[in-house]
Amino acid sequence: MRLGAVLYDDFELLDVYGPLEMFGCLAEDIETVVIAEKKGPVKSTGGPKTLAEYDFTDAPALDLLLLPGGIGTVPALENQNLLRFLRERCPDIPINMSVCTGSAIFAKAGLLDGLRATSNKMFFSLASSQSDKVDWVEEARWVDAGQYVTSSGVSAGTDMSLAVIERLFGAQRAQQVAAFTEYQWHTDADSDPFVKYLNQADTGPT
Amino acid sequence: MRLGAVLYDDFELLDVYGPLEMFGCLAEDIETVVIAEKKGPVKSTGGPKTLAEYDFTDAPALDLLLLPGGIGTVPALENQNLLRFLRERCPDIPINMSVCTGSAIFAKAGLLDGLRATSNKMFFSLASSQSDKVDWVEEARWVDAGQYVTSSGVSAGTDMSLAVIERLFGAQRAQQVAAFTEYQWHTDADSDPFVKYLNQADTGPT
Repeated sequence: MRLGAVLYDDFELLDVYGPLEMFGCLAEDIETVVIAEKKGPVKSTGGPKTLAEYDFTDAPALDLLLLPGGIGTVPALENQNLLRFLRERCPDIPINMSVCTGSAIFAKAGLLDGLRATSNKMFFSLASSQSDKVDWVEEARWVDAGQYVTSSGVSAGTDMSLAVIERLFGAQRAQQVAAFTEYQWHTDADSDPFVKYLNQADTGPT
Repeated sequence: MRLGAVLYDDFELLDVYGPLEMFGCLAEDIETVVIAEKKGPVKSTGGPKTLAEYDFTDAPALDLLLLPGGIGTVPALENQNLLRFLRERCPDIPINMSVCTGSAIFAKAGLLDGLRATSNKMFFSLASSQSDKVDWVEEARWVDAGQYVTSSGVSAGTDMSLAVIERLFGAQRAQQVAAFTEYQWHTDADSDPFVKYLNQADTGPT
């Protein structure tokens, strides 16, 4: 299987690397590739740059796609090349995952219409304002709608990833990955400790 | 302040990016730079490559240093250039942090002699065998010995980072970062849910 992380400038680091850590523990079964509009370094919000080895023209076939959020989500929502790439590719990919405000981009591309989905809590309206055809779930750590799995903010993507690993490879293997990474897995998708911050972006760090 | 992440080939992704996510939320106060033996892409165990912008000859002055673990720790323990860089720089850096087997490298460099320290649980002996002058603590999520702060495996580095943020900027700011990243912070350094896997590397995923 092959997982493609689709990056854009000012992506949030842990949105990408929590999930890639967990899937990376299954290297015998899952290869990870990094895709962006242009090959080369892609800057995160935090500063460090990740190297994209594929662009939208030569990205290989994928079994899983990962779309992060971050400050860069706002300009990404206007990036027609990104939206076109997702509209062309996601319908053929069995599992498309978003973390944080990544679900705003899926929604803008029309890919979540008719589905249940969630997003970052403090910036929830950034996602929910993109489409009123989505059944937005405010209180959820993540929402598994089958072909689209959307998580809440940043760290929630790691919990979602273990749930997807459980779906693909069974509970024992997911628990082994959590133990190997000394990760205290929040296993209940419906329990959301951060819904109290819904749309309260002013409570973040300065 | 400036934080330098020191990478080497086959570093573990979340060892680096859990901490850099948390410190990255304080971008007004902390700049993050990436350092390696050679400038350019550094390969993680999981596959994705991070761009090192500085090498050991031109790395800027640092207030915090972060050393990850991973499969690459084993060859890194024999890398004299890396050990020399750490021996030269760490004594002048107020806070040096390791995640996972990164503490094995600090220990090999002699930097932890006389101090309390911890490491990855499944591979604990990789660290403890590097120096018998270190007070190795088996049961700890992380150990704050002042100038050297060492964490347990992979995910523990994120909890350690928030504790260092609390030390530097106060509890309120650390809690704000945890809320912003929707992270369920394990705040007790002495509580270690994974000590039961001590030196049981065979329980990891395959």
